Amino acid sequence: MNEKTTADLEKLRDLIDGVDQQLLHLLRKRLDLVAQVGAVKHAAGVPIYAPQREASMLAKRRDEAEKMNISPQLIEDILRRLMRESYLNEKDVGFKQVKHDLGHIVVVGGEGQLGQLFTQMLTLSGYSVKSLDKNDWQRADALFDGAGMVLVTVPIKVTCDVIKTHLTRLPDTCILADLTSIKEQPVDTMLLAHKGPVVGLHPMFGPDVGSLAKQVVVVCHGRQAEAYQWLLDQIAIWGARIVEAEPVKHDKAMQLVQAMRHFSSFVYGMNLCKEDAEIDTLLQFSSPIYRLELAMVGRLFAQDPELYADIIFAQQGSQDVIADYLDNYRDALAMLKSGDRDAFVAEFKRVAKWFGDFAPQFQHESRAMLQSVNDMKTG
Amino acid sequence: MNEKTTADLEKLRDLIDGVDQQLLHLLRKRLDLVAQVGAVKHAAGVPIYAPQREASMLAKRRDEAEKMNISPQLIEDILRRLMRESYLNEKDVGFKQVKHDLGHIVVVGGEGQLGQLFTQMLTLSGYSVKSLDKNDWQRADALFDGAGMVLVTVPIKVTCDVIKTHLTRLPDTCILADLTSIKEQPVDTMLLAHKGPVVGLHPMFGPDVGSLAKQVVVVCHGRQAEAYQWLLDQIAIWGARIVEAEPVKHDKAMQLVQAMRHFSSFVYGMNLCKEDAEIDTLLQFSSPIYRLELAMVGRLFAQDPELYADIIFAQQGSQDVIADYLDNYRDALAMLKSGDRDAFVAEFKRVAKWFGDFAPQFQHESRAMLQSVNDMKTG
Repeated sequence: MNEKTTADLEKLRDLIDGVDQQLLHLLRKRLDLVAQVGAVKHAAGVPIYAPQREASMLAKRRDEAEKMNISPQLIEDILRRLMRESYLNEKDVGFKQVKHDLGHIVVVGGEGQLGQLFTQMLTLSGYSVKSLDKNDWQRADALFDGAGMVLVTVPIKVTCDVIKTHLTRLPDTCILADLTSIKEQPVDTMLLAHKGPVVGLHPMFGPDVGSLAKQVVVVCHGRQAEAYQWLLDQIAIWGARIVEAEPVKHDKAMQLVQAMRHFSSFVYGMNLCKEDAEIDTLLQFSSPIYRLELAMVGRLFAQDPELYADIIFAQQGSQDVIADYLDNYRDALAMLKSGDRDAFVAEFKRVAKWFGDFAPQFQHESRAMLQSVNDMKTG
Repeated sequence: MNEKTTADLEKLRDLIDGVDQQLLHLLRKRLDLVAQVGAVKHAAGVPIYAPQREASMLAKRRDEAEKMNISPQLIEDILRRLMRESYLNEKDVGFKQVKHDLGHIVVVGGEGQLGQLFTQMLTLSGYSVKSLDKNDWQRADALFDGAGMVLVTVPIKVTCDVIKTHLTRLPDTCILADLTSIKEQPVDTMLLAHKGPVVGLHPMFGPDVGSLAKQVVVVCHGRQAEAYQWLLDQIAIWGARIVEAEPVKHDKAMQLVQAMRHFSSFVYGMNLCKEDAEIDTLLQFSSPIYRLELAMVGRLFAQDPELYADIIFAQQGSQDVIADYLDNYRDALAMLKSGDRDAFVAEFKRVAKWFGDFAPQFQHESRAMLQSVNDMKTG
């Protein structure tokens, strides 16, 4: 670069720095205004996530952007990122308390990650929450006395035992709820152990989400829905969406959605390890899509093996689903080994047809993802 | 909501709308300034992607944000998104031409998606590009006459045949290059067919990337590197990073990175189809992580089956890698069926150890991804 070029670039970069300063001030102002919206909603007990308002606001901005020759997707992406930030900040003001005459809440397994998250959310909403961990059973009766709700969030493998052994003498009006990622057995067991209101919940997210906005909580009704409706309303105020489900249907879906998927990722990591692949080399040769897929496998192994063992070993039916996948894999490999390219293409087209409109939709979605992966590159 | 709440929210939303107007104006201003930077760089022939400038700029903004009690990650994410937009816009001003006395370029397979992308980039950089498609062989000699470079981008299965049959009488000084996703055979074949400069390239991205900024292009040197150095410089000006590789090592990595991975996604889709899973239901029960994984599988089936057949059937060695995965899957299933939870946990820990620092790094990366997936939800 010659001196003129360097000087020109320097001058422009100073101007850009100036724009970025203004940008920061504007962000501060917007975050403050949205925090005020949060406070008003908090006082009125309105859910923090308003899909329609969000959609209409984004549509307006996209229009305005287009008139200024700015890509509508750019402003949408920036505003979505800003909204996420505002949802995270909602926690600072707390949430409206829906039920005032509940008595206290006992979280069984309150020291676990999910237990801590729900304890935090309930506390931020004004409830009195007590934790009961596995060494606390001697003081269980004292804790349960006067409790308005007992929320069970212990490892899957002990959930039913804990319910059967320890939760049979709750006050009649006390709500018994659980957060287990399977639902048929825990809900049945709760219904047997307790005569009062029973509800099964499955929060469809990890404990590391910063906010519950837009997350999903599956609800399996047990008994006396009117007694725990406030809890569903409370969860909606946190920003999550309630999805009702039959326990059997839910559990069947989880075999595919959780057990089979996690198992495949586990085997994929095991396979890389056995091939003794060099991760560095793989990353160097990685397109954004492979980098993302590798990250999705690698993230598994940064987490608690017991948690994944729980999920994978939880349902007998998962083994069948996993075995089916193995059979399909074997068939497909035979097709590959026979060099039958036409059969591959025909099968590909058949599956594509089955995916229908979801295939292009997923392509569209994942393209945005892959662009974000690329944005994050630093060298 | 009572009237007071509604009025309060209305007032705040008007203020937010006002901030968003200012935001749009600021974005317009920043895009214009960065376009000016692009024009200066264009004139000087400086690559559009400057990692160090980017890193130091982001570090400064993060500091400033922190002082204003704004999350540093927020401003970083917004600026990265803005930079992506600016890279996309670089195309509008074109790129500095590195080599002026080349003669014209012939793209063999110029009607294909990747051929079109390279034709566009070369044209934007001032080169004269002619396309030669599979029905054009009768005018090949006329096209090759005076050509400075012939770039081959035809399906893998015919690449070597096309080179052997049609590319043996190029001018001696003409560069012969290819864009095939395997490298050993094409480079060897080019070296046999042509006496002049030869280079193998593998662009590690799909043809739907909007910009080459931060993308990777693998280079396998063939012969007379000094004659095609300008091409590597030209690609760097487009913003891509050049990674040199031995063809054999590259191809081996591709068995894992492309063939095995695409094959697994293919089987996963086939499996969903055979189980006749309801995608709607699965999505309803999906955490962000599963939604992303489903999208990564589904996107495959929105694309050309021939392309994936090409990649999967290209290398004999891929079958071994795929067969190894099947073996590992079978062993892991046996462990699951025997109910040996301890063995699962032990194996999990062993793989986690092998991943080492990459596991938490991948977890960190994918968390950002998953948050973006959640941001995109609309209901």
